Amino acid sequence: MIQSFNSSLLENAVGELSKLPGIGRKTALRLALHLLRRDENEAVALGESIINMRRNICYCSRCHNISEQELCPICSDTRRDPAVVCVVENVKDVITVEATRQHSGLYHVLGGVISPLDGISPADLEIDSLVRRVTEENLREVILALSPTIEGDTTNFYIYRKLADLPVQVTMLARGLSIGNELEYTDELTLGKSIQNRILFSSTFHPNE
Amino acid sequence: MIQSFNSSLLENAVGELSKLPGIGRKTALRLALHLLRRDENEAVALGESIINMRRNICYCSRCHNISEQELCPICSDTRRDPAVVCVVENVKDVITVEATRQHSGLYHVLGGVISPLDGISPADLEIDSLVRRVTEENLREVILALSPTIEGDTTNFYIYRKLADLPVQVTMLARGLSIGNELEYTDELTLGKSIQNRILFSSTFHPNE
Repeated sequence: MIQSFNSSLLENAVGELSKLPGIGRKTALRLALHLLRRDENEAVALGESIINMRRNICYCSRCHNISEQELCPICSDTRRDPAVVCVVENVKDVITVEATRQHSGLYHVLGGVISPLDGISPADLEIDSLVRRVTEENLREVILALSPTIEGDTTNFYIYRKLADLPVQVTMLARGLSIGNELEYTDELTLGKSIQNRILFSSTFHPNE
Repeated sequence: MIQSFNSSLLENAVGELSKLPGIGRKTALRLALHLLRRDENEAVALGESIINMRRNICYCSRCHNISEQELCPICSDTRRDPAVVCVVENVKDVITVEATRQHSGLYHVLGGVISPLDGISPADLEIDSLVRRVTEENLREVILALSPTIEGDTTNFYIYRKLADLPVQVTMLARGLSIGNELEYTDELTLGKSIQNRILFSSTFHPNE
């Protein structure tokens, strides 16, 4: 039990830090005391970077990724293929997919997945704007890159239905064995899917590429 | 692997957040994206509370606890016994001891414990100022409340030797069974100490008070 800090400034900083996800009051106190021990510039740099980020980052008007301008750097990159759009749940997933260097098209950030339990309905997500993009931007392919969960699959299916009548190819990420994992420890559902979706072995095939 | 964030503002905030102890780049990104989703006021309040805390908190000139004035609220509290001083390793331990409500005297924050491996020698700690306080403030008792570790015990012994010739009683925290722990799981050293330091059982004794 942490009771009194004898300082409203410390109390205040601990209170604000402990609002962050996964940071309780004990951790918040540890972080605050760490900042007190370090150089003043370090604490000021941290505080200002948070304020600047929140004040100046906005969302790309096209794909809803974070951006510092009207269009995000990905949408304004002319070397990318604007006819292929990868649909992801959130901003973090853009970073994750980008790190694979396997997608050279654009993105569309939904802002979540359909989840009745959390009160998230299709209207809360950027689904209508995706449907509009398909027509207006004349998209060739929409890659659904949502998590392989019940909510993700529900959202995949909802979007698939919405796009069914439009002349666009809708694909989704393959489900199969995780590279590097033992077969023995793969769950049955995934193993089953990986049998259904088995790939024709060819002499030019490099398994882990 | 998190590679590019497409935003120097986000990059900057993640960089500063990941300097905090126990916070890696993945957690820092999660925190930054959380702040982006929340109200702007929340991020600004966090940033400002950190800056204000670091800029305005100083250390009590008497006990070296954190303070917003020359003397901390504990040192300036006239209801406390100024002749009994509890020696602790750091500011956090002041809060921990205060939470027990068992100490009504003042504190002396050493700023660490003697640890040759970490390059901390007695000269780096507030030991000389403690010796001065014993004489100048005419202390009756010094309670050594350092952690029961090798470094803590070394520091306890060093301070004890420094104060040996002065007319002050030096005490230290009892070592014994942790309340609520099974005897079976108590380590031998602690159990041994708790036998050596056994307490006379009296009819007025309430074990866990």
